[in-house]
Amino acid sequence: MKAVLHNTENPNQPLKIGEVEKPIPSENEVLVKVKATALNRADLLQRAGKYPPPKGASKILGLELVGEVVEVGKNVTRYKVGDEVFGLVGGGGYAQFAVIDEKMAIPKPSFFSYEQAAAIPEVFLTAFQTISWTFGINEKNSKSILIHAGASGVGSAAIQICKALGMRVFVTASKEKHSFCQSLGADVVIDYQNEDFEKIVLEKTEDKGVNYIIDFIGKDYWNQNINSIATDGKIVLLAAMSGAKLESVNLAKLLMKRVQVTGSTLRSRSLEYQQKLTKEFIEFAMPWFESGELKPVVDKVFDWNFAEKAHQYMQNNQNKGKIILSISE
Amino acid sequence: MKAVLHNTENPNQPLKIGEVEKPIPSENEVLVKVKATALNRADLLQRAGKYPPPKGASKILGLELVGEVVEVGKNVTRYKVGDEVFGLVGGGGYAQFAVIDEKMAIPKPSFFSYEQAAAIPEVFLTAFQTISWTFGINEKNSKSILIHAGASGVGSAAIQICKALGMRVFVTASKEKHSFCQSLGADVVIDYQNEDFEKIVLEKTEDKGVNYIIDFIGKDYWNQNINSIATDGKIVLLAAMSGAKLESVNLAKLLMKRVQVTGSTLRSRSLEYQQKLTKEFIEFAMPWFESGELKPVVDKVFDWNFAEKAHQYMQNNQNKGKIILSISE
Repeated sequence: MKAVLHNTENPNQPLKIGEVEKPIPSENEVLVKVKATALNRADLLQRAGKYPPPKGASKILGLELVGEVVEVGKNVTRYKVGDEVFGLVGGGGYAQFAVIDEKMAIPKPSFFSYEQAAAIPEVFLTAFQTISWTFGINEKNSKSILIHAGASGVGSAAIQICKALGMRVFVTASKEKHSFCQSLGADVVIDYQNEDFEKIVLEKTEDKGVNYIIDFIGKDYWNQNINSIATDGKIVLLAAMSGAKLESVNLAKLLMKRVQVTGSTLRSRSLEYQQKLTKEFIEFAMPWFESGELKPVVDKVFDWNFAEKAHQYMQNNQNKGKIILSISE
Repeated sequence: MKAVLHNTENPNQPLKIGEVEKPIPSENEVLVKVKATALNRADLLQRAGKYPPPKGASKILGLELVGEVVEVGKNVTRYKVGDEVFGLVGGGGYAQFAVIDEKMAIPKPSFFSYEQAAAIPEVFLTAFQTISWTFGINEKNSKSILIHAGASGVGSAAIQICKALGMRVFVTASKEKHSFCQSLGADVVIDYQNEDFEKIVLEKTEDKGVNYIIDFIGKDYWNQNINSIATDGKIVLLAAMSGAKLESVNLAKLLMKRVQVTGSTLRSRSLEYQQKLTKEFIEFAMPWFESGELKPVVDKVFDWNFAEKAHQYMQNNQNKGKIILSISE
């Protein structure tokens, strides 16, 4: 079969389509003819040798996919040949065929195009994991949240879930992405390049701070995050894009405000964890997708022959929402 | 009435007994003739002007008490004059009389002496809050925990609760307190003055680290704690006795291991929070006190005329478990 290949020796070599062996589904997996996949920052890291795929996962890029079931493992009971599914995989999405555990696969509703379905798994599951599991928010409430990188994939999913839950949403994003964040429901948009988010958060919350923060930045935002969080607030760190080595941290504020800080990732979790997350996500989110309260956010669709261009586009932070690869044959 | 008074202008002035006005119970409070109270590190901080009592609380020292109800507020339904109760208060325990909210009061079982009952509230409620609420451990399990300052009040309560839950307990303590920690059930005792706890924890857990850490030390232990915690581990910081200002923190390990760090205190929480905690604590712990699986740990009882000596004793870290003041008249 064909797949997008990256040169692990030289990450600067452009991505290109080549021939590899078609995967064989194990007893709990289905083989999918992939229709579309989507980009993640992890793909850029993996390509640069900084994020090796978990043990047992395909070495081909691609953490999510949508497609048609063409073969089922011998213990598979949920799907049959011809069904359309989408979901999270440990790797292998940038290919004509890929395998997915049956409990990780989600039935694709007919109201989604392939491109829309491909835009859902990684960012909505991560946002759901953070909001529901780590923060413990599962009911409508009037709490406040600050979502950094609000126009990113996870950011745009988190904005929508928090608004569906009735929350007050602050986001940081570059100026040109503000109207996009507002269209998703963000209440307060902050231009991180020209404004001080700590100052704005405190002003707009009568100095109380926000109850939750989702951060991807790490080092550069740590102190401002601690100053922006309310008493009993919770911060989740999903990445550390500005670096991870802090030179000065004051635990006194953490103690006084009783702050909880959690480092979190999705890909490194066990299969059981991801299966349970997928199951709860389906129950939580699919009715809201059906009613239109949640929407997959497709920024741009690239034919997979232009995978290299798609990577450059993500590298340059040009996207608002997801970048999709359409698998054209 | 008489009460132990501290000089807020000059903390070096010894504590002494003096005359103050007897408190009047509000509608949800009972007035208690205090039989015993207990010391907390917060008392030393409050005396030094570093830990002001919460709004509305008595300015007299003393965060816990046991005694006999002598008057009830007009809405009180749970207690009547003559009942014996113990529990947590915002202040005022070092006195002949004190008020306590009826939902914060716990009926004193006859199998406890006053001194034993006075040794329970602050340390067992804090340990329960940390283990049950923050860590979310509510059932028997085989997880591991590192409890720093294992011979302290909270430490000795936490060891017992974790052992009652079936856990594997590591503690740090000075050498002379090791046998005490072992008598409470600690499985691995580490001499923090002469041994490297990180090295021992990793050795004894096949390099996996422990699932939970309770820390009071802060700065000096931060990096070692992060190195000693397992993937998906949780750390609670209850104090920062070695200081709060860290000069170097690496968030990469927090992210990779998906660690959760929570700053926590008990006294600063809302009354509703403390009432709920007390209610759940009674259900969780009282059967285990009755069966002897949990035991209040009284180190030494001082007559309240020697309150100053008792403070010196705590200041010198001489105690294993709780220091009690007996209110002798």
